[in-house]
Amino acid sequence: MSKKAIFYHAGCPVCVAAEDSVARALDSSRYDVEIVHLGTDKARIPEAEAVGVKSIPALVLEGAPFHINFGAHLSDLK
Amino acid sequence: MSKKAIFYHAGCPVCVAAEDSVARALDSSRYDVEIVHLGTDKARIPEAEAVGVKSIPALVLEGAPFHINFGAHLSDLK
Repeated sequence: MSKKAIFYHAGCPVCVAAEDSVARALDSSRYDVEIVHLGTDKARIPEAEAVGVKSIPALVLEGAPFHINFGAHLSDLK
Repeated sequence: MSKKAIFYHAGCPVCVAAEDSVARALDSSRYDVEIVHLGTDKARIPEAEAVGVKSIPALVLEGAPFHINFGAHLSDLK
């Protein structure tokens, strides 16, 4: 069964670089990778906050948040 | 041919979490993943600095640095 990976971003240049490199480097045979744009899908901001995401881009692997470089604070997207 | 991925760390708890999750989630069929402990292998600090690594843990994918959460500044390891 695939593990869950969620990549949260907001379309910023730092986000795009992280998506193109880190998110795409994940092993898709082991991870079900979902890409979520929090700038256009603001309804999912609370779910990101709930697992500890503070800024984007961020990769959440099985519920654990990993902030990748820095694009924007989550609070800036509201 | 495999692409090069280097995960730099220094054994800190944040580093270990990132290694166990992010570094191991990479697709090993596409990436040759090298793990480098800069605390014990200080000779490789200049190489990390040269590609833009500022703090660890950091993942360098084909020469592009991605800082993952924050464990320590590279300067703290010297």
